Amino acid sequence: MASVELVAVGTELLLGQLVDTNTAFIAQRLSEAGIDVRATHAVGDNRERIAALLSEILARADGAITTGGLGPTIDDLTKEAVCDALELDVELYEPALEQMERTFAALGRQMRSNNRKQAELPRGSLPLRNPNGTAPGFVAFSRDGKFVACVPGVPREMKPMIVDRLLPYLRERLQARETIVTFVLHTIGLGESEVDHRIDQLFRSSENPKIAVLAQSYRVDVKVMAKAASVTAAHELIAPLRREIESRLSGFIFGSNDASPASAVERLLEKRNLTLAVAESCTGGRIAAALTGVPGASKTFLGAVVAYDDAVKREQLGITRATLDAHGAVSAEVAAAMARAVRVRLNAGLGLAITGIAGPTGGTAAKPLGLIWLAVDDGTDEATTWRFELGGDREAIQERATTLALGTLWRYLSRDNGERIS
Amino acid sequence: MASVELVAVGTELLLGQLVDTNTAFIAQRLSEAGIDVRATHAVGDNRERIAALLSEILARADGAITTGGLGPTIDDLTKEAVCDALELDVELYEPALEQMERTFAALGRQMRSNNRKQAELPRGSLPLRNPNGTAPGFVAFSRDGKFVACVPGVPREMKPMIVDRLLPYLRERLQARETIVTFVLHTIGLGESEVDHRIDQLFRSSENPKIAVLAQSYRVDVKVMAKAASVTAAHELIAPLRREIESRLSGFIFGSNDASPASAVERLLEKRNLTLAVAESCTGGRIAAALTGVPGASKTFLGAVVAYDDAVKREQLGITRATLDAHGAVSAEVAAAMARAVRVRLNAGLGLAITGIAGPTGGTAAKPLGLIWLAVDDGTDEATTWRFELGGDREAIQERATTLALGTLWRYLSRDNGERIS
Repeated sequence: MASVELVAVGTELLLGQLVDTNTAFIAQRLSEAGIDVRATHAVGDNRERIAALLSEILARADGAITTGGLGPTIDDLTKEAVCDALELDVELYEPALEQMERTFAALGRQMRSNNRKQAELPRGSLPLRNPNGTAPGFVAFSRDGKFVACVPGVPREMKPMIVDRLLPYLRERLQARETIVTFVLHTIGLGESEVDHRIDQLFRSSENPKIAVLAQSYRVDVKVMAKAASVTAAHELIAPLRREIESRLSGFIFGSNDASPASAVERLLEKRNLTLAVAESCTGGRIAAALTGVPGASKTFLGAVVAYDDAVKREQLGITRATLDAHGAVSAEVAAAMARAVRVRLNAGLGLAITGIAGPTGGTAAKPLGLIWLAVDDGTDEATTWRFELGGDREAIQERATTLALGTLWRYLSRDNGERIS
Repeated sequence: MASVELVAVGTELLLGQLVDTNTAFIAQRLSEAGIDVRATHAVGDNRERIAALLSEILARADGAITTGGLGPTIDDLTKEAVCDALELDVELYEPALEQMERTFAALGRQMRSNNRKQAELPRGSLPLRNPNGTAPGFVAFSRDGKFVACVPGVPREMKPMIVDRLLPYLRERLQARETIVTFVLHTIGLGESEVDHRIDQLFRSSENPKIAVLAQSYRVDVKVMAKAASVTAAHELIAPLRREIESRLSGFIFGSNDASPASAVERLLEKRNLTLAVAESCTGGRIAAALTGVPGASKTFLGAVVAYDDAVKREQLGITRATLDAHGAVSAEVAAAMARAVRVRLNAGLGLAITGIAGPTGGTAAKPLGLIWLAVDDGTDEATTWRFELGGDREAIQERATTLALGTLWRYLSRDNGERIS
């Protein structure tokens, strides 16, 4: 498989003043086009270091693609470094100069000599037109048939140049005949090592498709990547592994690709013709926010009561002072009463409630920081409740509790009965 | 100046499936600590390539810092690659094993042998404790006195390990004598070009401190960076510029550094001894989530009603069907009625309400997608209302509306009267 490395140029990247999103954009397009990205790099506006890095890359890969450092300022040194690495001088590229003259005339601005520099390209390069800016991109060549492609760092200029100019050229040049398709299954309720254990043999034996396990907080993703001559052929490679993984992780997969715990819950609610109301304490609105982040949420989600203060639990949800005093706000009894109350008051089919201690203060020996009670009430029986203890700081507990609440509700909905699933 | 290079480990980075934000975070903290970042890299889950890259880096820099690849799965290979590059074997780190055993016991999950692997460190390493996860970080050493520091790739685990453990150690070890201090002022209510214009002369003339203007959605940050021999000396360089910027942007600065619109609102509420209740429609819980994200929120924030469905607006907030029919749910009248109702029902000093059209459907010529009505009710007079039209997709509108609501409430609270500020 043809391979390249990516180089983002700019001192601001090394100072951490900018998150580099160009690299992910280009890497994704290249892997879809069947071109392997061996590694990516960021380097400062330093001519020698850029040139040294390009020389190293050309010793091990078919080519390099750089972003940034093509502007008119004294800090823009990518072209000079390419000339150093490939031992080339520059030549004027007339169409770029003409485009620049037209642009400056249209803006009524005077063109300066440092702008003219932008119209020069390493000798023998293939120019890449820039419809959205003045600096053209280019592909320069080494004597032994390797290449360095350079595009601007401004995403608006970089993206069309990559997609419309560079990729078609590289697919042809590198005779990239393969494509990579990625399929992701999302699970909830199993730890990373348990998922790994269940798919272990598959995982070890398979090179194409390749399988990876990725943990998020209280969710684990299984990613299947297939290389093939076409998208259809890649999907055919994925299909049998997908079925095998689905069977090994049965009951824990809430969706694939773009699915979220919230979208999985809403899909099941819609299927069962149910509406949902939520009562939140420690998560403070995050469950409602996740549910309303899904387009079309209004079909199943009615609303929520964020009962942060105990007075709101009493007055908006009718939890009695006696219940609060007897069991404490973080208890199975209060969670169950909140779930029932919000279901009844918002006239929903299901009520989901959460109460817990997110910190940084408020934990005790009996009720530690991170203690969470969840309840689901469907009106037919007593509410079902679950107890969890979560680790991490306030932000982590709030995030994990949100995922856990939605994941638990999804598992409740995807089973025939409401048996405990902790 | 001491120099390091950063290595992000993960095949998903080379496939462009993930934007790497860890590198910018670490690079910024290092440059603030006076440690030069020579270059940054991303490499796949490939033991040989990780080891080869680390060897190259140690030939030219004082050390390397890696993120990712420390988990329990078979494609987590960072530790093995470090051992290869430094020619070390591993030894068990007992405290990490004990922490892991406790975590698994609390979750009622079984620990597997692949988890035990996470408690092993390259021989002679300095362990870096991980309060937010099971994989400890570490600093491993080469025979010639160079180092490779490895931290997890999960940002919530990586950040405290870098800030609390690794940086203090590296500053000492590398005797970093120069420091870069960054001070950020956050504004709301001015556009990027207006902020740029107001601080223009300062901006052009200053090299140290250096000033940068960064736009976020409906917020603009001004960043001041000073290089000096000590933190105190850097702050002395920043002070006069800070005063000048504060005067030029007076009335629009809601805080500095870690401040958020939510924390700025809570600070003013506490100062005025006021409590707040929120009624949300289109933002679906995001305003409550932002407010409860601030530690100590319970002092001023009582709770919220997420009235997503109109029936909830009627039944939980008492908005009459007549009001909804006459003006529509997205109107000044309904926003004002929601703000009043939530203030009265939750017994708060102030009520904040928002109603709008987040899309993807539901817009009309008269009430386009992105139309937002905000209201604040303090019980003394009619509610104050504001109208905005926001651009972007559903997610962008929900996020921007949340920032706008909190920013508008902050400006309302920071003025003596409630005059309109749109």
